[in-house]
Amino acid sequence: MLKVLILLLSIVPSLCLGADIKPVKYVFLFIGDGMSIPQRMAAEEYSNIVNGRGLAINAMKYKALTRTRSADSFITDSAASGTAIACGTKTKNGSIGVDVSGARLQSIAEVARDSGRKVGIITCVTLNHATPAAFYAHNKSRGNYYEIALDMLDSNFDFFGGGGIQMYDNSKSKRYKGSIFDLAAEKSYKLAWGAEGLAALKPGDGKAIAVGTGKGGVPLPYRIDNSSGPRIADYAKKAIELLDNDRGVFIMVEGGKIDWTCHANDAATLMHEVMDFDNAVKVGLEFAKNHPQDTLVVVTGDHETGGLTLGFGGTGYKSYIERLAFQKKSWESFRGKFAKLVKQKGKDVSFDDVKPLIEGTFGLKFLAKKGDPMGLSKSDVELLKEAFARNVESPSGRALPVACAKILDNKAGLGWTSGAHTALPVETSAEGVNAHAFSGGIDNTDIAKILKSAVR
Amino acid sequence: MLKVLILLLSIVPSLCLGADIKPVKYVFLFIGDGMSIPQRMAAEEYSNIVNGRGLAINAMKYKALTRTRSADSFITDSAASGTAIACGTKTKNGSIGVDVSGARLQSIAEVARDSGRKVGIITCVTLNHATPAAFYAHNKSRGNYYEIALDMLDSNFDFFGGGGIQMYDNSKSKRYKGSIFDLAAEKSYKLAWGAEGLAALKPGDGKAIAVGTGKGGVPLPYRIDNSSGPRIADYAKKAIELLDNDRGVFIMVEGGKIDWTCHANDAATLMHEVMDFDNAVKVGLEFAKNHPQDTLVVVTGDHETGGLTLGFGGTGYKSYIERLAFQKKSWESFRGKFAKLVKQKGKDVSFDDVKPLIEGTFGLKFLAKKGDPMGLSKSDVELLKEAFARNVESPSGRALPVACAKILDNKAGLGWTSGAHTALPVETSAEGVNAHAFSGGIDNTDIAKILKSAVR
Repeated sequence: MLKVLILLLSIVPSLCLGADIKPVKYVFLFIGDGMSIPQRMAAEEYSNIVNGRGLAINAMKYKALTRTRSADSFITDSAASGTAIACGTKTKNGSIGVDVSGARLQSIAEVARDSGRKVGIITCVTLNHATPAAFYAHNKSRGNYYEIALDMLDSNFDFFGGGGIQMYDNSKSKRYKGSIFDLAAEKSYKLAWGAEGLAALKPGDGKAIAVGTGKGGVPLPYRIDNSSGPRIADYAKKAIELLDNDRGVFIMVEGGKIDWTCHANDAATLMHEVMDFDNAVKVGLEFAKNHPQDTLVVVTGDHETGGLTLGFGGTGYKSYIERLAFQKKSWESFRGKFAKLVKQKGKDVSFDDVKPLIEGTFGLKFLAKKGDPMGLSKSDVELLKEAFARNVESPSGRALPVACAKILDNKAGLGWTSGAHTALPVETSAEGVNAHAFSGGIDNTDIAKILKSAVR
Repeated sequence: MLKVLILLLSIVPSLCLGADIKPVKYVFLFIGDGMSIPQRMAAEEYSNIVNGRGLAINAMKYKALTRTRSADSFITDSAASGTAIACGTKTKNGSIGVDVSGARLQSIAEVARDSGRKVGIITCVTLNHATPAAFYAHNKSRGNYYEIALDMLDSNFDFFGGGGIQMYDNSKSKRYKGSIFDLAAEKSYKLAWGAEGLAALKPGDGKAIAVGTGKGGVPLPYRIDNSSGPRIADYAKKAIELLDNDRGVFIMVEGGKIDWTCHANDAATLMHEVMDFDNAVKVGLEFAKNHPQDTLVVVTGDHETGGLTLGFGGTGYKSYIERLAFQKKSWESFRGKFAKLVKQKGKDVSFDDVKPLIEGTFGLKFLAKKGDPMGLSKSDVELLKEAFARNVESPSGRALPVACAKILDNKAGLGWTSGAHTALPVETSAEGVNAHAFSGGIDNTDIAKILKSAVR
């Protein structure tokens, strides 16, 4: 008896920090692109204020601080970090599923497939974008979208869902063989378009590619711009329904536009994207609750985007995150409307023409009562006029909406320092079987190492 | 046997996340004021590049993401966070060792004292500053330095060491009774001045207050400005030597000027302060290595300061943290020299007069060869001239050195968004007995709750 006691106590440390990973039937990996601790904490606070409750991702039991550097940079891009998370090997920024020498790597999803599991890949951006691609493609350049989409079809994975396929009919590609959607049908992928197509898919349909928008090459819209269409949570639910089988399942779900809105320094849009991502994670957590002996749910980010901070010089020790609720549409929605306006008005377009759009989108006020926090200062207006002039020169650019979002965010007590990524570590959270392995400090490559053992 | 197995497996979760805290003979708590994950990661990278190795604080086995909000603010100050960490109760910004109603709280250090342990409080800032004060004082306002120092003497703690005592002879105080140093001697505290005084202290001397600089009211200098005087690591070593006894020890060590340099957005000075703090933690970790069954080492921060980010718009995906090594002295050293210059030259002082000081302190160059990354752009120079003008108006201000540091930091690929604190969670790291309790996500009040159990 004493021997058993000693033996068991001796394995407690490894149970805590996890080397002994056992296979798990259902493995879910959720990746918030560009989502690090500031993004999670800002959305936690916003959700607490607006919805009266925090986020499920932040309440998960196990947490590991996770470093993100790539093989050639302190600041990773999504291709290198996607490869690290998916395959367990550091590579150069820009590379997908290959190491620094260009040699092919094996992803968690490929290990799962080869061990007889069913595999689903879901994202709100295009299905051949860097992060999802890292789970099935092998290419030195993330920009080779058409070739990456060919790898997608060759993967033989069971379900792809969410956004469309970028450059799906790129006849300039050296490897061009026709539209990816035509090739997909030839490879026995059932194509499902829009909400109806998704709803119609049922177990036994075989392999499927479900494109949310009904358009071939575009991502899902931002959550703040669209409350009706299918979201990644819906794809996650459907994937579970379609893929459940005795041999097990691996499903990766990416919240890809968290990153995109952080590149635009637009925090209100970010709040909705993180909450949308949280809804998808809840699908996994709910499933885990019903299958506690058979499920592992892991949530991570691939890097931080934007240099988001939870404090701003102008607001000092005060925070007004609730002011983000004044924003009604995303920077992207603004950009589309602005481009239309410039097209209509031509060179005669004036700053006054755009004021209603600024006020309606971002809640900023040009003529505010004294003390109204949403009122624009003279220097704010100067800044917006400058951005307006630049944006008129290049109407598909985003100078003006980014400037508007930044002003609002600063009023909310948030700061940004970059339009690119930063090297801040991310948080990996886990719940379920093997979740203890996600504790302490880990490297992003450790995620693949642990999960490959779990999907054997 | 099976029953034992089931019983033991059933307690594994609580062993992992820790509710059952056992008393530990030696408990060390290290607090990096203003030190959150960006500060730790920037210093890790800098230390890797400059010294070829990372930091001990980042290699500790257990880590917990730690929330910092105060009772009345998403963004805490050091008084409220110090109280949370020391006493385990949320209070208002500004309050020390009392709850929101003003009622007296009990700190870890007081629990340790009352259970017969010896207690040491160490900081590089003044001994009655907010963070150390939270371990012995009870005052609604952190600004009541004299009254806080009276509480310090009443604490009967065994050792105080590091900086001086702010306003130690404040005759304007309603509770004025004389110089704190005189009162300390009356209360049987041995006063030790400077390096020699510290070195002369020996076990059996009784209670002691050791002031590093040899001056009553000032903190230790920044590490970057002074390589010879005693540092917090030296005070930690001495405290162990003086306090070691059968009943046990609690020692709190604060790296207080991490915060101060972040308020000034000076990253080079920050690198040296974090490495200096790391040296102090190494004293604790080394001791733990030699007393593995009897020691707990906990490292935390009280909040993030400055909105530091590991990426900057102007440098995109590139990082050049090694450029911080061009800076030779702190913003504070610059401020002193600048004030002297203004005193000498009077109103005739010109921007040209200050150029050598800017170049010598921050490594920035007014006349650089093309492509030299340290060359100042026209807009940089404009910015510095503006700051110069403001600083001439107020020579004890820090407009110019802060502007210089920010320009250098941006060249290094780092950003700042605030001169105040932010709400980013901090990292709590732990090693030794009970260290497992510092896992997952915790609140800053949990630190006190866990450590009070450890020092019973």
